[in-house]
Amino acid sequence: MKNLETYLARRQKAVNEALDRILADCVPGGRLFSAMRHSLKAGGKRLRPILCMAAAEAVGGTWEDALFPGCAIELIHTYSLVHDDLPAIDNDPLRRGQPACHAAFDEATAIFAGDALHTLAFEVLSSDRYIFFQGKRRLALIHLISRATGNHGMIEGQMRDILAQGGNLGLDQLKELHRLKTGALITASVHAGALTGKATVRQTGKLIEYAENIGLAFQVADDLLNVEGDPLLTGKSIGTDHVLGKATFPNLMGIDASRKFAAQLVEKSLQAIESLGIKANPLRAVAKYVIERKL
Amino acid sequence: MKNLETYLARRQKAVNEALDRILADCVPGGRLFSAMRHSLKAGGKRLRPILCMAAAEAVGGTWEDALFPGCAIELIHTYSLVHDDLPAIDNDPLRRGQPACHAAFDEATAIFAGDALHTLAFEVLSSDRYIFFQGKRRLALIHLISRATGNHGMIEGQMRDILAQGGNLGLDQLKELHRLKTGALITASVHAGALTGKATVRQTGKLIEYAENIGLAFQVADDLLNVEGDPLLTGKSIGTDHVLGKATFPNLMGIDASRKFAAQLVEKSLQAIESLGIKANPLRAVAKYVIERKL
Repeated sequence: MKNLETYLARRQKAVNEALDRILADCVPGGRLFSAMRHSLKAGGKRLRPILCMAAAEAVGGTWEDALFPGCAIELIHTYSLVHDDLPAIDNDPLRRGQPACHAAFDEATAIFAGDALHTLAFEVLSSDRYIFFQGKRRLALIHLISRATGNHGMIEGQMRDILAQGGNLGLDQLKELHRLKTGALITASVHAGALTGKATVRQTGKLIEYAENIGLAFQVADDLLNVEGDPLLTGKSIGTDHVLGKATFPNLMGIDASRKFAAQLVEKSLQAIESLGIKANPLRAVAKYVIERKL
Repeated sequence: MKNLETYLARRQKAVNEALDRILADCVPGGRLFSAMRHSLKAGGKRLRPILCMAAAEAVGGTWEDALFPGCAIELIHTYSLVHDDLPAIDNDPLRRGQPACHAAFDEATAIFAGDALHTLAFEVLSSDRYIFFQGKRRLALIHLISRATGNHGMIEGQMRDILAQGGNLGLDQLKELHRLKTGALITASVHAGALTGKATVRQTGKLIEYAENIGLAFQVADDLLNVEGDPLLTGKSIGTDHVLGKATFPNLMGIDASRKFAAQLVEKSLQAIESLGIKANPLRAVAKYVIERKL
């Protein structure tokens, strides 16, 4: 892919417009709505919907069909950030360069705004207004996203993350934590795209392998950015992981080995989708972006 | 209905067994799971699933088909209580006579346990393991439940409840608040049962009218119990609404007028389902239970 930045910008624009359409259907005006909008419009890379759309294209589907399924996942991702930033959890006042939801509003509002974004994902997924395919395939879509979000996936990972703070975590436990905390929803994004694009069982298997490697690479890169990143670019406080005594890849493996590990994971992800041909080029571009990104 | 207590006890038993089955499919053993189980198994009247099943029966369906849809709503109801009790919201250490989730565990765990119960509802609704009807009808089920749960319903009501504390709320605003906060999910329970039992449009309209009146009656009765109830029976702290300066029906109308208002609402709910015949007797019994209950 020649021009990754243009590609990502175009897809981000489509996602942001779709999210605006979803917001326009919400009850406007009140404090809950303002808090939801604050967190949803605070920027963000829109990596999950972009992966979802790219996966659909990789198996011959259209990115348009995968747009709202991807947006539903972005709503879930955003809700998880809102709750994660709360004083009782990561206590982070800054998110994407702007005040976190509880800092801009208050704790109660942030809890409710997260809850509302969470439900909204399932409202979108079950609405004929946004998603046009029906029946078993849509139910399978809802099921795989809910499995990845709940106690089999993301939330269990967030719980383990909190429990691990200040404790000793081995490398395998750290990988397992991230497989749940961020990996599950990234894999679900790609899986949802595969389902939307009517992937074969074999294609789906390849795409999931791609996603699992990219998901972990993304987390390693995130840990590296927390050590080395530019807060003006990342919009996050730097060194917070260290302060919280969090187990991170740089802490456990060292910075150089973490960089190598991320590169290996990206290599594996590329191998997994080798057979998918040029239609998978957007996925390949995203894979490279994951370790080259500065934010 | 001759023996309401036996009927309710039998249905509650079915709901509790179904919830146990759902829990058995969760990741066992960890802190997140323990917190989810703590809140889900802390008792509760199981009013929402019972309404769901009774509505299905009222239109010629089976209560068994409505069992898991009802349980999904109970999961949502339970998640909302877990978050509502948090220090940043109602700050209530006691729920159903047991420590609230954040008191038994901690705030972070309670936030995550609520989140996990929330997702689990949609995992159940989208799973072929629990719900057997397919396609458009199941998507409609998921959609109506998510609409009632999110920013068009329950969460908007919870937000308004917090904003109203200490302020002046008129009677109409109080009714609107409760229409959202508790009414929406109670109406969704009955609506879900109607959908499960393949109700006609006319039957569905009648059942929704029943539910809207019962939902408000339930809240008026709840407010009365907060003033007059026996904490040993209700398992709740008494007089907390007064301490929080909450607008309640007894505060705005007086106790006697509130009792009369609840009775009128129950009367209206009974009129709405008059045409449904003896199959609607369980719904009639539940309507009477709402104002006679001591917990």
